[in-house]
Amino acid sequence: MEQANHILLSEMLPFWKHLKEQEKKQILDHAILNTYKDGQNIHGGYENCTGVIAVKKGRIRVYLLSEEGKEVTLFRLLENDICLLSASCIIHNISFDIYVDAEGPTELFIINSSIYDKIAKDNPAVGNFMTELISLRFSEVMWVMEQILFMKLDKRLAMFLIEQANLEGSDTIRLTHEQIAGHLGSAREVISRMLKFFTNEGILQVSRKGIKIINRKKLAEYV
Amino acid sequence: MEQANHILLSEMLPFWKHLKEQEKKQILDHAILNTYKDGQNIHGGYENCTGVIAVKKGRIRVYLLSEEGKEVTLFRLLENDICLLSASCIIHNISFDIYVDAEGPTELFIINSSIYDKIAKDNPAVGNFMTELISLRFSEVMWVMEQILFMKLDKRLAMFLIEQANLEGSDTIRLTHEQIAGHLGSAREVISRMLKFFTNEGILQVSRKGIKIINRKKLAEYV
Repeated sequence: MEQANHILLSEMLPFWKHLKEQEKKQILDHAILNTYKDGQNIHGGYENCTGVIAVKKGRIRVYLLSEEGKEVTLFRLLENDICLLSASCIIHNISFDIYVDAEGPTELFIINSSIYDKIAKDNPAVGNFMTELISLRFSEVMWVMEQILFMKLDKRLAMFLIEQANLEGSDTIRLTHEQIAGHLGSAREVISRMLKFFTNEGILQVSRKGIKIINRKKLAEYV
Repeated sequence: MEQANHILLSEMLPFWKHLKEQEKKQILDHAILNTYKDGQNIHGGYENCTGVIAVKKGRIRVYLLSEEGKEVTLFRLLENDICLLSASCIIHNISFDIYVDAEGPTELFIINSSIYDKIAKDNPAVGNFMTELISLRFSEVMWVMEQILFMKLDKRLAMFLIEQANLEGSDTIRLTHEQIAGHLGSAREVISRMLKFFTNEGILQVSRKGIKIINRKKLAEYV
């Protein structure tokens, strides 16, 4: 990687200033910069040790996938976010598989897992960062679980549409009903029925171009 | 606490041999032994820093509780198990609330949170144990989430009944339909319907005394 990327990556790692010179060099020598297209798979399935991901540009989606192909989105990571679960082989006791896809054109720094693991074991600052990040993702996943268990689907769909509109910076959401079902861990038919309900209420306009929010205030009342 | 309990507690903490003498003394000086009755609440709601729990005798249930009173069991802890989520105030980034109840007569060591936190920050062995334990619970919760999302309720109920029979060492499960619904994050009516189905299949016998598994082999086929 060129010098400018070295600087960018170092600024994304909160423990950088606590690293020894040799550790800094090891990380930079074993980091690559990869480019992904919209929807491209980054991690998942058999390769359980892609590496530690740092999002340089774009957005990634982290999700669960069942044997039958059912999905649910756990969280999204934006620019400057770090993902350790894509290097789960180095986290003792993590026994679940996650999948990671690009949402839109995305550039990622990927740090070699074994190098990261070695440094985390020697350097308490890197170890502490791991604990904090795992706890953060644990909390995010618990939030999703509470939503699934305790929240009605109309509320969850309304929240998702508003969040998605904010992420895209547009009132038109260009996702299929199938894709929305995958985010929410629901079925396409159920999502279509609820989108129809919101349409009848004058909240949405559903067309081939996507789902347009025409009454954001009323949609927010469902949240 | 008396000397015998000091020894018991020290044997339950995997990092004990890596502690300095002063750290050992601090933990023992700030640990108490509490006794709970069946069903008694141990942690949850407002008190978010009960302390680090080590199960001396009995069994505890860790669960989520919605504002509407809906429950789902996340995991159970048995003798010698440790719970850090009952000291979530010391874990940076943990932002969800869990509840802990005794299942049957239970004795717990409870270590003061701030003392534990102080030692975890100074001593890498204690810090590493925290990361490992949080990752383990994260995995257990993901397993529950995958079950809820991807597994049919007949399968989940069959698994739960078999697990419960093994825990109790008896083929009769003395839980109400309401309690089973609380474990599985379902509704009483749904559980009653499914128990009736298993009864009609000659797998269970449901009476006022409880639910008796009369054909374990056939029940296991649903798993």
